[in-house]
Amino acid sequence: MRRKEFSIQEQQEIREFLQEVSYGHLAMTGEDGWPHIVALNFVYHEGHFYFHGSKIGEKIRLLNSDTRVTFNATKEYSIIPSYFSDPTLACPATAFFKSVLARGHAVIVDDLDEKASAFTAFMQKLQPEGGYDPIDPANDEYRKNLLGVALIRLDVEDLTAKFKFGQNLTENRRESLIGKLNDRNEPLDAETIELMKKYCPAHRE
Amino acid sequence: MRRKEFSIQEQQEIREFLQEVSYGHLAMTGEDGWPHIVALNFVYHEGHFYFHGSKIGEKIRLLNSDTRVTFNATKEYSIIPSYFSDPTLACPATAFFKSVLARGHAVIVDDLDEKASAFTAFMQKLQPEGGYDPIDPANDEYRKNLLGVALIRLDVEDLTAKFKFGQNLTENRRESLIGKLNDRNEPLDAETIELMKKYCPAHRE
Repeated sequence: MRRKEFSIQEQQEIREFLQEVSYGHLAMTGEDGWPHIVALNFVYHEGHFYFHGSKIGEKIRLLNSDTRVTFNATKEYSIIPSYFSDPTLACPATAFFKSVLARGHAVIVDDLDEKASAFTAFMQKLQPEGGYDPIDPANDEYRKNLLGVALIRLDVEDLTAKFKFGQNLTENRRESLIGKLNDRNEPLDAETIELMKKYCPAHRE
Repeated sequence: MRRKEFSIQEQQEIREFLQEVSYGHLAMTGEDGWPHIVALNFVYHEGHFYFHGSKIGEKIRLLNSDTRVTFNATKEYSIIPSYFSDPTLACPATAFFKSVLARGHAVIVDDLDEKASAFTAFMQKLQPEGGYDPIDPANDEYRKNLLGVALIRLDVEDLTAKFKFGQNLTENRRESLIGKLNDRNEPLDAETIELMKKYCPAHRE
């Protein structure tokens, strides 16, 4: 189940996840009622999600007619094959993942200081090694670029998260699965094992 | 720009991408007009997208009130730092990616043979090594499970794709960027370089 009440520690884990995952998907509704969806880089900054785009692009046109949006950031970890739990049926095949979902109204930001602050957060997230002059509206080149680009802020009304790492498994099943992931050792399996241990209800207490 | 007219070769590349990427995002519209979005494993099989879920879950409830959906499958490759093209401004920072977008009506599938065929395609995609009995409605265990799970088929009315790998760069800029990605050598950089060469308009002719 998705949850919307989080401990301080969980809030911190959600923020860390949103800082780690570079892009997500934004859903909007067209004037004709059709759902629209776009994949885009984002930053979660001071309690808001920020996105950018072209001032004359489809996103801005859609948001000008309906500001209601839903945003999803998901990262898939290990795919769990059926034979890890059942020797004959395909049905138990599943995947472990982290997913954060936010719903609210989109605001098109014109304030240049807020734009500079959000784009700075973008760069700190996606280019943490630096290598550019500070983003400052007093710098003529930056001012021109900040004026020319659209910045969208999602004012979050509702945020839910689901981190699925076998929390409902019995102790025996969890240990068995951890052993099999350890043997398989695909790229994200070690990280999955750590998260299975971290989110294990028994270890969590 | 997204395109919707594809050569035979491009159609093949789109199918390969949809077979490679394990999950995507489905956007739907709620009765109240709010957009909804869910991340989910999918398979592209015989010209349709298939998803599965709980018969009493939110997806089915939403699709029973409005069958119009949009689906997006995206994979981000290299993030291109600003300093690869500009020594001072942050603005040129970007990312290369593949993205496929499909729009159409969702159909809830009850036919057990179609369900078996789609779930077989799911398994061939996500668990290609096998390790399960063939999915067959004549098998009582599978029949029970096929009856119990919801399968959704997206009948595609419109499919567009955008593979962004610097196709608009000049030859000098492309060569410079390839050199810098080669030096950086992060996990997906080698693959990005291959795709930059593959999709280079000059090489393409």
